[in-house]
Amino acid sequence: MENHVVIMAGGIGSRFWPMSTPEYPKQFIDVLGCGRSLIQMTAERFRPVCPVENIWVVTSAQYVDIVKTQLPDIPDSNILAEPAARNTAPCIAYATWKIQSRCKDANIVVTPSDALVMDVDEYRRVITKALEFTSASDSIVTIGIRPSRPETGYGYICCSSECAGDPEIVKVDTFREKPDVETAKNYLAAGNYLWNAGVFVWNARTIEAELREHVPAIASVMDEIATAFGGPMEKAALQRLFPMCEKISIDYAVMEHAKSVYTIPSEFGWSDLGSWGSLRQNAEKDEAGNASVGADIRMYDCRGCVVHTSSLRKVVLEGLSDYIIAEKNGALLICRLEDEQRIKDFNK
Amino acid sequence: MENHVVIMAGGIGSRFWPMSTPEYPKQFIDVLGCGRSLIQMTAERFRPVCPVENIWVVTSAQYVDIVKTQLPDIPDSNILAEPAARNTAPCIAYATWKIQSRCKDANIVVTPSDALVMDVDEYRRVITKALEFTSASDSIVTIGIRPSRPETGYGYICCSSECAGDPEIVKVDTFREKPDVETAKNYLAAGNYLWNAGVFVWNARTIEAELREHVPAIASVMDEIATAFGGPMEKAALQRLFPMCEKISIDYAVMEHAKSVYTIPSEFGWSDLGSWGSLRQNAEKDEAGNASVGADIRMYDCRGCVVHTSSLRKVVLEGLSDYIIAEKNGALLICRLEDEQRIKDFNK
Repeated sequence: MENHVVIMAGGIGSRFWPMSTPEYPKQFIDVLGCGRSLIQMTAERFRPVCPVENIWVVTSAQYVDIVKTQLPDIPDSNILAEPAARNTAPCIAYATWKIQSRCKDANIVVTPSDALVMDVDEYRRVITKALEFTSASDSIVTIGIRPSRPETGYGYICCSSECAGDPEIVKVDTFREKPDVETAKNYLAAGNYLWNAGVFVWNARTIEAELREHVPAIASVMDEIATAFGGPMEKAALQRLFPMCEKISIDYAVMEHAKSVYTIPSEFGWSDLGSWGSLRQNAEKDEAGNASVGADIRMYDCRGCVVHTSSLRKVVLEGLSDYIIAEKNGALLICRLEDEQRIKDFNK
Repeated sequence: MENHVVIMAGGIGSRFWPMSTPEYPKQFIDVLGCGRSLIQMTAERFRPVCPVENIWVVTSAQYVDIVKTQLPDIPDSNILAEPAARNTAPCIAYATWKIQSRCKDANIVVTPSDALVMDVDEYRRVITKALEFTSASDSIVTIGIRPSRPETGYGYICCSSECAGDPEIVKVDTFREKPDVETAKNYLAAGNYLWNAGVFVWNARTIEAELREHVPAIASVMDEIATAFGGPMEKAALQRLFPMCEKISIDYAVMEHAKSVYTIPSEFGWSDLGSWGSLRQNAEKDEAGNASVGADIRMYDCRGCVVHTSSLRKVVLEGLSDYIIAEKNGALLICRLEDEQRIKDFNK
C-alpha cells in the first residue's frame, strides 16, 4: 500500500490574534521562533513516511498561495482548496476521494497542521506502526497521548483492555469531550484515558466506507465532485457542490460510530498549541519563565509572560507577570494569560 | 518697552521614551491628543502678549526644522539654534544678547516649551501684570504656582510677606530644590511656598546685568559671539564659541543670587508634564481613569493607565492597572507608572 499524508490547514487561529489573523493564521506562523512555521514542521515530520508527491494539504482557497510559498516542493495538484469551511468530515472526505482518484490502494495519515511534536523520531515510529496496522486491517487508528496533567482543553480517548495483537495497539472503548477539571482528574487517575490528538490513520477504503455509511450525503457530494476530477470543470464543481456538505467534524461523523477503532498510547511531547498558555509551555523560556519571539525584546521585572512581536523594532517591558504581549502588522494585544479565552471577542 | 517671549525648546524628553525620542522630543508632540503639540500651545498662549516677530525659540540645531514646521509664522531669524546643550543660563544669555541686538529696550518672558496651562486667560493676565512690573523695575519676576499637593517633583519658591506695592507681586525669600515628601507636606502646610514654574519675566537690561555679574564668563562668550551677529560669520562664531559656556541652569547662575526677585502666586492649572503620571493627571480620562491618545485603543478591565500610540493601527489592552503603554515608530514600552523613573535607563 502507498502511504499518503493529509495535512488539514484550514483553521483561522482566532485565539491567537493578533499574532494569528484570518489573513495569515497560526499554522503558517513561526510561533516558537525556531525559523519554521507549524505547517512546515508538520510536513517535515512526514518526510521519511512518504514521498512528497503523496503529501496533501487541504486548506481554505485564500491560503493556497501561502501553502505554495511555505511548502514549495509539494505538487500544486496536492493542495486542495476548500471553497468554504465545513469542518473536518467534508475536508477528509474530499482528500480521500482525491487520493483514491490517483491511488486505489492508499494508506492514509490525517493530521492537523498546527500541532507540536517534540520527539519526532518517536512520532514517526508510532505513525509507522499505525500505518503498518491499517495496511493489513480495516480498522481506524487514532493517536492517543498519555496525559501528563488533568487538561480540560482536550478531548479524551477511553481505552479498553483489548489489544490488536501488538500490545501497543489498543482498542478504543469510547471518546470523551473536553471534561471539567474534576472529571479530567478522574481520567488521569483511572490510567486508561488518553488525550485525543486528532491524528488519524486508516486505509482509503476504510474511511471511504465509514463516510458512506455514517454521512452518506457528504459521500454523495464527493461522488458528484469526483466526476469532474482532473477535468476543466473540477474547480467549478467543487465551488458549487462542496458548500452543500454539512458542517461536521470527523469525530462526530465517523469516530464515535465506527466499530473498529484502535489507539496507540504515545509519548512524544505533543501539544495542540491551542492556547497562549500552551505556547508558553512549549517555547524556550528565560530564567523568569518568559517566552519571547521577536526583535530586541527587553524585559525588566517580568515573569511568565509570552511575547510575540513581528513588526516592532524594539520592545521594553517592565513589571508584567503572566501576560500575553502580541503584535503583528500594527495591531497590539496585551492581555492576562488567565483571560486569554476573551481574545476571540476582542477582535470582533 | 517692547515685549518679547523666549521659548526654550532644547530638551530631549528622555523620561517619555518612546513617545518622546531624541530625534523628536516631547515639546513637539501632541501628548494630550488635542491636535497641537506642547510648543504650539505654548506659542499660542503668547499671541496677545506680543507680535509674532517678538517670539523667539531657542532650541538644538537638530530641531530647527521641526520648529519651522510647527510654528511657521515665527521668523526664521528668531529661531536660535544652540550648537550644544549648555542648560538654561547660556540659552537665556544667547537669547538676551540676540534680542538686545535688535531692541535695546526689551521686556522679556522666558518660558519652557513643554509645560501645560489650563486657564490661558488667567495665565495671560499674570504674565501681563509681571511684564508691566518689570517694564518699570529692574526686578525679576518668577511665576509661582500655588501648590495643590505635596509634590516632590518640583522646586519651590519661599515667599516673604513683603510685596511690591501690588499685593499680588510678592518678594521671594528663597528658592528650595525638589523636597522629600515630608518637607513638601510642611511647605504645603506653611502656606507661603509655591511651585517654581520656571517662567521668568525681566527686562533685557536687568537679566544682562545679572548674567554679567554672576556668570561673567558666559557674558564674555556672548559678547564675542555678538560681534558676528547679522554677519556671514554668525553661525561659525556660535558654533565655535557657544560650547565654551559652562553648563549651568539659570536658577543656580542667577535666581539664587539676584537681590530683587518677586513672584506672583498663581492658579491657572499648570503642570510641567514632567512625568507620565502628570500626563495622566492632565489628560482626559475615561470612567476607569485611563488616559489614551492614539488610534483604535480598546481597553478591557484596565484602570489608571496612560496610553500613547502613534503608528499602531489597533490596540487591545486587558487587565492592566496603572501602566504606561507607549509606542512610536516601532518602539513599544509597557511599564508600571510607579516605576517610570526607570524609563531613562531602559533606552540606553
